Amino acid sequence: MSTTETTEQTTAETEIRELIADREAAMQARDAARFVAHYAPEIVKFDLAPPLRNAGPQLLDPAGMAAWLSSFADDDTFEFAVTDLDVTTDGSLAFASSLNRLAATPRGATQSFELWYRSTLCLRNTEGTWRVVHEHSSTPFYMDGTLRAATDLKP
Amino acid sequence: MSTTETTEQTTAETEIRELIADREAAMQARDAARFVAHYAPEIVKFDLAPPLRNAGPQLLDPAGMAAWLSSFADDDTFEFAVTDLDVTTDGSLAFASSLNRLAATPRGATQSFELWYRSTLCLRNTEGTWRVVHEHSSTPFYMDGTLRAATDLKP
Repeated sequence: MSTTETTEQTTAETEIRELIADREAAMQARDAARFVAHYAPEIVKFDLAPPLRNAGPQLLDPAGMAAWLSSFADDDTFEFAVTDLDVTTDGSLAFASSLNRLAATPRGATQSFELWYRSTLCLRNTEGTWRVVHEHSSTPFYMDGTLRAATDLKP
Repeated sequence: MSTTETTEQTTAETEIRELIADREAAMQARDAARFVAHYAPEIVKFDLAPPLRNAGPQLLDPAGMAAWLSSFADDDTFEFAVTDLDVTTDGSLAFASSLNRLAATPRGATQSFELWYRSTLCLRNTEGTWRVVHEHSSTPFYMDGTLRAATDLKP
């Protein structure tokens, strides 16, 4: 690998890490518009909640995410963090995996919850701008007959 | 984009689709060694079952997957298919998303099950060979208080 290629990759990795840090800050600020601004129009999402697959430009509309964010109490129990971030880049593509922590109190509830989940982001650089083209968020589930989502795991 | 770059991308996409078809055939044949041969040593897996994250060269040992495969009855109820496959490639990286169908009868059980799950694969080409460096498999879960894994969804 040439020095130029290495430098390009370092720059790209820095840009991807900045993008993911901005998504993290957007979640912490509960700013749906800032969060969805990083999606490409061709985004395909595999979300924590059904359905199996979400796609289409309506995912760039902050309304859906704003509604979800407003289901949580507007207090300091709302926390979000990206950990164990691993970023790979080459050319116009990148992917990143992480373990994310969400803590919040559902509006009207008396207790907060804490959820660790896995995140995979696939990104493409178009005309100098990185955008998320695929996002996969999940917990595993217990294959013990209960089929409970494993929402109690910690790294 | 130049014609050369387009041709390289077409070739890469063909190679990725062949790799995923070979994984599909390996699952159908319940051939763990053939399946794990496509993992890179740096593989990081987010699996259907806990833990949150699996990594390490032991994932290239077919023993673990062979044990899982042998938990199913050795009859023609075992089925596996990759559908809705979407492949993106550039340079030495690629990613692919799909909805996968697994049907099987647990050994000793009288009834088969059918499970649709989401799959994201991230791949890297090293010295001419594509390998899977990250795999994320999941179902969503119902955010309705039951926290049941959504194993009953179909595309």
